[in-house]
Amino acid sequence: MTETGLDRFRVVLVRPAHAGNVGAVCRAMMNMGLSDLAIAEPRGPLDEEEARRRAYRAVDILEKSRTFTALAEAVADCSLVAGTSARTGLYRAHARTPREWAPDLVRAARQGRVALVFGPEDNGLTRDQLALCSRIIQIPSSDAYPSLNLSHAVMVCCYEVFLAADACERLVSEASPEAATALRERMFALWREALLTIGFMDRQKEEHMMLGWRRILSRGLLTEADIKILMGIARQALWCARQNPAGEGAAREPETTTPPKH
Amino acid sequence: MTETGLDRFRVVLVRPAHAGNVGAVCRAMMNMGLSDLAIAEPRGPLDEEEARRRAYRAVDILEKSRTFTALAEAVADCSLVAGTSARTGLYRAHARTPREWAPDLVRAARQGRVALVFGPEDNGLTRDQLALCSRIIQIPSSDAYPSLNLSHAVMVCCYEVFLAADACERLVSEASPEAATALRERMFALWREALLTIGFMDRQKEEHMMLGWRRILSRGLLTEADIKILMGIARQALWCARQNPAGEGAAREPETTTPPKH
Repeated sequence: MTETGLDRFRVVLVRPAHAGNVGAVCRAMMNMGLSDLAIAEPRGPLDEEEARRRAYRAVDILEKSRTFTALAEAVADCSLVAGTSARTGLYRAHARTPREWAPDLVRAARQGRVALVFGPEDNGLTRDQLALCSRIIQIPSSDAYPSLNLSHAVMVCCYEVFLAADACERLVSEASPEAATALRERMFALWREALLTIGFMDRQKEEHMMLGWRRILSRGLLTEADIKILMGIARQALWCARQNPAGEGAAREPETTTPPKH
Repeated sequence: MTETGLDRFRVVLVRPAHAGNVGAVCRAMMNMGLSDLAIAEPRGPLDEEEARRRAYRAVDILEKSRTFTALAEAVADCSLVAGTSARTGLYRAHARTPREWAPDLVRAARQGRVALVFGPEDNGLTRDQLALCSRIIQIPSSDAYPSLNLSHAVMVCCYEVFLAADACERLVSEASPEAATALRERMFALWREALLTIGFMDRQKEEHMMLGWRRILSRGLLTEADIKILMGIARQALWCARQNPAGEGAAREPETTTPPKH
């Protein structure tokens, strides 16, 4: 197992509504060689009998599954977090299919934990939840009915990962391991502070700009060495801005000089 | 639809035991652009309410499904019949994966009807039923638990057919085009100036640090919109640093406070 990396994958279900789906997810996971299940932001206790019935011979996964109050906690130790989204939109422009992502995910699982995150049956992942994901997975489906059953979506993703793990050639790995989510989030928090302090964004545009910044830094893996550079720049920009006698946050380049044409 | 051939595919369920699975199969089919469902050798009437509930927005497929007393009748008008089998054995030596068969099946569907046949939940297709199939499909799965839920097996096969039919809707393309090299280089030149001015790097480490920064921003494509954000941040950091009365370039955060442990 260690060789394929499948034991480093975690399936995270956010606010699942139906116990039957949770059980079916356990079975799909075990069929495809995965075993680590997490439930984030649970709605309440699941109908355990229904979940066990649908898990069938995979009840062990159900019994060993863990519950977390927040998605951020469920993926805190994961270096790569891939979230599924049925909808397309401004911040989902970088979505790829499970088949396109699978080799990347399998490679990442050889160095650290990888989370596959699935939203609730009714609404999918929220914008904030997707912001925690460095990869967006979109399962190809018919326009006539694009929304898959939760356990079917898990099955398709696990199936692609299972095949990729089998087929994937070992590639030379990055010298520095991929950064865990908690460290990435510390980096983004520091950048948020820096971008506000240097006057790049104000409170009104803060969330919008931060999503843009996250998007730019989520095109591929970020190693711990990358995070060190990114935090170093933000820290230096902050320090520099705070030397400014005009006071932090207020500074803003005169509108006339920005943006330049290109 | 006619062009992709997906409307020429028929899913045939032999002796399905659970109404919920039949409903879930309808949904999986509609998700993947298929619509023709047949039930062969029915055990008796299905719990229609449960089937409808699991079919969800694909009840139309359930309502239009047809029932046949024998598998041979259900596939009588099909030119290609592909049966699924979890087990390997003497008569299954020619089994291929759904991915291996999919292009063949799609080609066949452009000339005639193609049946995808799935056995009962408990035992799968019998030897006689498999004898009616000119192709044997075996879904790759873990040795620890090779037997998939019926609707999951249908989903995997339909998904492979859907992708092979190239019916896949194109994922939303980037709203902004990928930036040309000249624009990227202008962006990096501006960052070089900013990183020197805020005191993040000195002339000695300039090339080394710029390579690191380029590496971080070269993990995937950069759109023109991304470049605009990146140039905006660099320009604002530059402007902010130049307000500093200590003079540009000289500013450097005291060594003791950086770098923090993480």
